[in-house]
Amino acid sequence: MEYEEGLVGRGGKRAGRWRRALRRRLPVLRWLPRYDRVSAVADLVAGVTLGLTLVPQSIAYASLANLPVQYGLYSSFIGTMMYVLLGTVKEVSIGPTSLMALFTLQVCRGLPVEFVVLLTFLSGCVVLAMGLLRLGFLVELISPSVTSGFTSATAVIIVAAQLKGLLGLSFTAETVVDNFRYIIAKWDDIRYADAALGAVCCSVLLLLRKVKDIPVSEKRPKLRRALWLLSISRNALVVLAASSFAYLTHHPNQPLFKLSGRVEPGLPSLSPPPFSAAVDNSTITFVDMVQQLGSAVIMMPVVMVLANIAIAKAFCAGGRVDATQEMVTLGLCNMAGSLVHAMPTCGAFTRSAVSHASGVRTPAAGLYSGIITLLALIFLTQYFYFIPKACLSAVLICAVVFMVDVSAVRELWRRDRAELGVLALTFCVSVARTVELAVLAGALGSLAVLLRQLMRPALHAHTLKTEAGSALVVRAGAGLVYVNAERVARRVLAAARCGPRAVLLDCAALALLDHAAMQALERLAAALAAAGHRLLPYNVSADLLHKYEQLAGVERRALRATSAGAALAAAPEPRAAAPSEAAALLAQ
Amino acid sequence: MEYEEGLVGRGGKRAGRWRRALRRRLPVLRWLPRYDRVSAVADLVAGVTLGLTLVPQSIAYASLANLPVQYGLYSSFIGTMMYVLLGTVKEVSIGPTSLMALFTLQVCRGLPVEFVVLLTFLSGCVVLAMGLLRLGFLVELISPSVTSGFTSATAVIIVAAQLKGLLGLSFTAETVVDNFRYIIAKWDDIRYADAALGAVCCSVLLLLRKVKDIPVSEKRPKLRRALWLLSISRNALVVLAASSFAYLTHHPNQPLFKLSGRVEPGLPSLSPPPFSAAVDNSTITFVDMVQQLGSAVIMMPVVMVLANIAIAKAFCAGGRVDATQEMVTLGLCNMAGSLVHAMPTCGAFTRSAVSHASGVRTPAAGLYSGIITLLALIFLTQYFYFIPKACLSAVLICAVVFMVDVSAVRELWRRDRAELGVLALTFCVSVARTVELAVLAGALGSLAVLLRQLMRPALHAHTLKTEAGSALVVRAGAGLVYVNAERVARRVLAAARCGPRAVLLDCAALALLDHAAMQALERLAAALAAAGHRLLPYNVSADLLHKYEQLAGVERRALRATSAGAALAAAPEPRAAAPSEAAALLAQ
Repeated sequence: MEYEEGLVGRGGKRAGRWRRALRRRLPVLRWLPRYDRVSAVADLVAGVTLGLTLVPQSIAYASLANLPVQYGLYSSFIGTMMYVLLGTVKEVSIGPTSLMALFTLQVCRGLPVEFVVLLTFLSGCVVLAMGLLRLGFLVELISPSVTSGFTSATAVIIVAAQLKGLLGLSFTAETVVDNFRYIIAKWDDIRYADAALGAVCCSVLLLLRKVKDIPVSEKRPKLRRALWLLSISRNALVVLAASSFAYLTHHPNQPLFKLSGRVEPGLPSLSPPPFSAAVDNSTITFVDMVQQLGSAVIMMPVVMVLANIAIAKAFCAGGRVDATQEMVTLGLCNMAGSLVHAMPTCGAFTRSAVSHASGVRTPAAGLYSGIITLLALIFLTQYFYFIPKACLSAVLICAVVFMVDVSAVRELWRRDRAELGVLALTFCVSVARTVELAVLAGALGSLAVLLRQLMRPALHAHTLKTEAGSALVVRAGAGLVYVNAERVARRVLAAARCGPRAVLLDCAALALLDHAAMQALERLAAALAAAGHRLLPYNVSADLLHKYEQLAGVERRALRATSAGAALAAAPEPRAAAPSEAAALLAQ
Repeated sequence: MEYEEGLVGRGGKRAGRWRRALRRRLPVLRWLPRYDRVSAVADLVAGVTLGLTLVPQSIAYASLANLPVQYGLYSSFIGTMMYVLLGTVKEVSIGPTSLMALFTLQVCRGLPVEFVVLLTFLSGCVVLAMGLLRLGFLVELISPSVTSGFTSATAVIIVAAQLKGLLGLSFTAETVVDNFRYIIAKWDDIRYADAALGAVCCSVLLLLRKVKDIPVSEKRPKLRRALWLLSISRNALVVLAASSFAYLTHHPNQPLFKLSGRVEPGLPSLSPPPFSAAVDNSTITFVDMVQQLGSAVIMMPVVMVLANIAIAKAFCAGGRVDATQEMVTLGLCNMAGSLVHAMPTCGAFTRSAVSHASGVRTPAAGLYSGIITLLALIFLTQYFYFIPKACLSAVLICAVVFMVDVSAVRELWRRDRAELGVLALTFCVSVARTVELAVLAGALGSLAVLLRQLMRPALHAHTLKTEAGSALVVRAGAGLVYVNAERVARRVLAAARCGPRAVLLDCAALALLDHAAMQALERLAAALAAAGHRLLPYNVSADLLHKYEQLAGVERRALRATSAGAALAAAPEPRAAAPSEAAALLAQ
């Protein structure tokens, strides 16, 4: 079944418009009428597979964010199930992600869980507002190098932060460097059982990851399918195996491994987002909470939207992503999530890849993975006590270690060193300070690189000789705007000084022309005229003609000419003025 | 005498290079060897005229900055005289200006004078560093609309702040609104003698300003010259007249007017810049002082450089301003100024206009105006006691009221409403908050306008039919960079969907191409290929050829073609694949 818009409504025009608007904002209406058994089976398989990834990932991300593990599951089912109704990209699965967990950790470190839930709610509101105000373009200010830089940094930070869990150590460290320093300082406290379990889990996870690539004869599709399923459900299998082992070898007074510990069983209670929190017997008001969260209330939504749109783009090759609808959906998912104590959520690249590989057909797959999460919450939470921390660390490390984006570094080294600088800046700020600050620094860095390019455009000049006379032809390598107009004008003037009297300005590349540039062109024309030259812009694109026609002191006859020769022919040299006349002109 | 570089050194190449470097950094060497009596006389006349403007202006600006009036003169002679040796633009006169005074007032309100002098020193250091590091390009980030907005706002703020002086009122108000509110509240306290004097001074100043435009027969050059001199020295005359009147009518116990009061007589003492200050019997350290000055330590230099470069540009029509040398000079002038307790200084537009109108020939004119300032300090300070405050307010108001830039508003209304928004933003932030914040807000606003243009470039597409086949010709209206690459690619893809198989991309305007844009083009080529289309960039400028040649999946044969027809001829349609072959290709 094609997952595309179709079927024009049969009612009148008005009804059709309403129906289209409704289908636009409630995309389930687009595919549900044509939903069939084949699609349903495909979605069931994909949904269950996704669920097997979602449950262990959610638990691990909650532990990464320093929250009790059940909060991961609280965050998983609402988003996943709401996306069925509102989502447009069948591969996206809304839930906790490594980036969101890390961001939450950095913002809410040491704060009660109410802050996390409030952050979820406020982020949802901001994303929804961004969607309704069509502010999605803000995400375009974050260049791919910045995305690459902070993704790699996220991976490095998470690996550094999870090493202690893998080794059975306990300490609180904020930075990557601190993590390594504490590990070295506490080297003698390493719990060998945990370290061994962690190593085994990592090895098994990395091996199972490779299992699906084992070459199997095409004649044995079932074996192939089994290997693939084994590979894709590796997280669930490893957590299950490690927990069973911990349960079987459990000794109440002296547990062999560090365990996740007591987990609140059952479904979360439904309650409004916390607009106040109790800390040390005193109540913190809403305003104080928002001040404590600070700029994260803006940066978290931006990163959320960025991640979601990046995924949607990656899986919609045609590029027909309805960014507004995606933002509205993401906002509503988080606002609803905050009612069940969810941490901030967005689409995860890893899960989307699983959905894609599992042959998902419609967003309905989310329904099944949501149900699996709910079942886990109802029936399994009592057993979560036995999940070894080292095992969760292994799951996290093996998930994020492949996010380190070395290929981007290699490609940028070849193609664009300035952008590589932006990537490095983002990476370093992420690792040394916070992801939030890094996104901001990276965006400003990209902007600086862009401005540098704009400020110093290449300028080519050559002399043209035709029957209509000779001219200097100048072509500038970027739009003429306030950051470069003066510089370009100065260089054109310098180039014109000793050349022929006509200066042809090729405006093909001058597709941007702001007020400062118009003034600069007028001054240039005046300065050239004072030195006896004429400024002839040509090759002006249709939508800028009216601007060039307003310019005072600029020759207009050649504006529409598309070649230098035609321009010179359209505005030939005036007859030479008699010497006395020229002197009179100059004297004025 | 032409004020230009000339005379190549007679020594060897090495000596020539040293000499050129020396002449570049000590521009006095360029004109002094050819200085003659005619130039000296012209400079003397211009210098004295300028001095007659400089002295009353300096006193008024000091009182604007809430400093004892002698500080204005302390600030005037060092800069003016150093510029003789180091300056490159003969019209520029370094000294206190309305903008600097207002900025100083906003930053140092209620702080001891040590802060002002330290601000002068630090601003000098920052400007010098900006010059040596060639950071002058930063000034290009401030668009003409921003300059216009904050210049107009400065005028409005100064008029509002000086009204109280004109009316003989005393109060401290920070904002324009506060000033008007206090004036209304204290309406009954208005001193009628001051108000009358202020009104008379304003009227005389405005009348004298017009005197030089009285049509006088060309046959009476002396009368013409006298009227012009009367007009240009109006500030000095009015201050002199008002002070004399105050002196003559002075009654020690009940003065008729509010007077400037006791002034420290004589030259300032020479002392290092104050790296600590005493407030309320406690000592403030250097670090605390700098923290108190805050971002002004960066913004003040930026505004200084901006003002100076704007003036230099305005008076060097040819546009040959050595920005680095100007910044080094400005930095040194302020650093030296801080040794004699100067407030921050830069070039003033009003004074430059006076110099220009007085027929200045070389920067030597500054020597004479500097000497006049020194003479005023030595012989006149005792009489400064009698300068009525209302008279100084009148001088200030009549100087700045013409800075309100209505013509820019009118022009932007016609040409560029977005830039008008930036102007309005800068103006409002200046008036409501501070000039410093306004420059920042304006710069960001201009950047936003530029980004909006870049993000949404115009896109033209038409179908071309030649013997070599048919093609869709697409021309995008701006460089392809990360902020617009995805959007442009998406729109090209949408346009190509139903058109001919060849998509010709006119790269004339795509003169910027960053890494994100290259990736977007590669993805576009892949998406087009999947739909059976070919992407053919053509008309690529020489300096970007190597980038286009790196693109994977993009047809390269037409890159150098300069017209769509030539591009299609260079890369004709491949022979139609047999159906089975095509199916095989698609199946891959």
